[in-house]
Amino acid sequence: MPELRKDPILGRWIIIAQERGKRPTDFLVEEFKVKGGFCPLCPGHEKTTPNEVLVYGREWGPSNSPGWKMRVVPNKYPALVIEGHLDKQGEGLYDRMNGIGAHEVIIETPNHHDRFSHLPAQEMLLTFKAYRDRIRDLSQDRRFNYVVVFKNFGQAAGASLEHSHSQLVALPILPRMVSSELDGSLSYYKYKDRCIFCDIIRQEIQQKLRLVCENSHFVTVTPFAPRSPFEMWILPREHNSSYVDQDEASLIALAEIFSETLRRLDGCIANVPYNFVLHTQPLRSGPLEHYHWHFEIVPKLTSIAGFEWGTGFYINPMPPEETCGYLRDVQL
Amino acid sequence: MPELRKDPILGRWIIIAQERGKRPTDFLVEEFKVKGGFCPLCPGHEKTTPNEVLVYGREWGPSNSPGWKMRVVPNKYPALVIEGHLDKQGEGLYDRMNGIGAHEVIIETPNHHDRFSHLPAQEMLLTFKAYRDRIRDLSQDRRFNYVVVFKNFGQAAGASLEHSHSQLVALPILPRMVSSELDGSLSYYKYKDRCIFCDIIRQEIQQKLRLVCENSHFVTVTPFAPRSPFEMWILPREHNSSYVDQDEASLIALAEIFSETLRRLDGCIANVPYNFVLHTQPLRSGPLEHYHWHFEIVPKLTSIAGFEWGTGFYINPMPPEETCGYLRDVQL
Repeated sequence: MPELRKDPILGRWIIIAQERGKRPTDFLVEEFKVKGGFCPLCPGHEKTTPNEVLVYGREWGPSNSPGWKMRVVPNKYPALVIEGHLDKQGEGLYDRMNGIGAHEVIIETPNHHDRFSHLPAQEMLLTFKAYRDRIRDLSQDRRFNYVVVFKNFGQAAGASLEHSHSQLVALPILPRMVSSELDGSLSYYKYKDRCIFCDIIRQEIQQKLRLVCENSHFVTVTPFAPRSPFEMWILPREHNSSYVDQDEASLIALAEIFSETLRRLDGCIANVPYNFVLHTQPLRSGPLEHYHWHFEIVPKLTSIAGFEWGTGFYINPMPPEETCGYLRDVQL
Repeated sequence: MPELRKDPILGRWIIIAQERGKRPTDFLVEEFKVKGGFCPLCPGHEKTTPNEVLVYGREWGPSNSPGWKMRVVPNKYPALVIEGHLDKQGEGLYDRMNGIGAHEVIIETPNHHDRFSHLPAQEMLLTFKAYRDRIRDLSQDRRFNYVVVFKNFGQAAGASLEHSHSQLVALPILPRMVSSELDGSLSYYKYKDRCIFCDIIRQEIQQKLRLVCENSHFVTVTPFAPRSPFEMWILPREHNSSYVDQDEASLIALAEIFSETLRRLDGCIANVPYNFVLHTQPLRSGPLEHYHWHFEIVPKLTSIAGFEWGTGFYINPMPPEETCGYLRDVQL
């Protein structure tokens, strides 16, 4: 019998409609089509991107020249633009504002053919440092309330460039998803006086039903009510609402568990397209007792169709206990 | 400059990041792949589906035999199952319940190669009647709180069968999307003492910026804050929260405007994959002053990626005033 499960933070229901005997290899994954031709993110082509706003590893030479290990540049085709004043207007009963914001590209490696999931942890570390440094810098711009950090890997997951990269968008408004998470975790906190994410981590470590891997600072779980097969969350063991508060040891541990987590995913379904998103506190909220920063990784294996549009619920053909088993069994 | 627009009902923001000179023909649409082989929805194959729960147009002959014009059958691979008692359980801090519900397939025409968008209004009418009759019937089952009616057209929009059909799912719980719409429209009603949808219709008819077409009973608009290019809403002019309250004249007018709306869409982008969803009141709410039933049609032209997962916002490359112009210009 199918099962309905509620995400404890958002109150979002998921239908686990298990297809009997479905295995990871039953998901068809198309190889990322290599387009060839000119790559604007490759070393030597620095002049074709807007000027870099952050760079690691270039020991000599001018800005926007080769020799870097990680580089952040404004998006050449931004969804929001950085120049201008925030201007809010009505149109009858409607509200609009001009699209002020920042949209940046984090170029995770100089090597065109490196996959993020195959990077050694010490190289991945540069990306996680860049997220921290860029959020810190952007938080000084008082027009912004939130920075969304995300990665799209694979065409089906929305990536348009092959060269390994992630993106960030600084927004003048708080995203719906973030407000819903804050509201949900606050109402749990008011009731229990505990952080719901801390409680989830405690239960998952104890039950071991959905615990994929762990290290000194982090755990990776398949969430109780996942939107997609093989969805995973990476959470810090210690309570903290802000990603940018992490010290060097935590960032190293993050790179290590992220690397292990993505290699386990790749071991189950090679080249699976996925999105990951950093969930962290708003720029101006200060430390929150009820919120807990984390990453959510959502493989692109099912489609969003009429049912999902109409309900906000998701239908998932594989329970997280089963996908967790497959992920744990991967030989690294 | 890009623009941020707020959906007045849900408070969901949309980024209109207009790509200069983008035209409908710039969207690549793959032809629905004809798989050939056996179609379980075709006349003569009635025995391969579960027993029909509703049929129109069969003047003689037994159940589950040919001669029908429209037929509703339970889904052979249901996301939820009809038999059983609702059973709610906890698992530590998590909640689950068994997957009780109904999942049915509305076979819109006996002709395998007919497209819904090409059906004459009098044939489309049978589908809209079937939605009404099935919701009425399922509302008698006290375990259900809501019936979601939707159509997935085209593989990219989640359709797995080529033969023209839509689906319904009866749910024991109220979908998140429906609660959000009810909450949003109630808070407007409390403030203004008016239905927000009635106000939208009034403004759209007056402004004529986003009014695609209209008839005696309905209007079709491109919404102010659309998730996708060419998104359209079909709304009844007269206030009513419940789809099932419609009389014959209203159903005929609905079929007529739906047919015109889909032909206009097809005239802009031939064979575009789309989803549509009926938004109507919960089964047991009674008539609502603040809610207004309607259909939402969302073409599948953009992808849901990390930004959308992380924010609940959407990035749309074409403003609705522009898509409305293209839709109005189609010669029918």
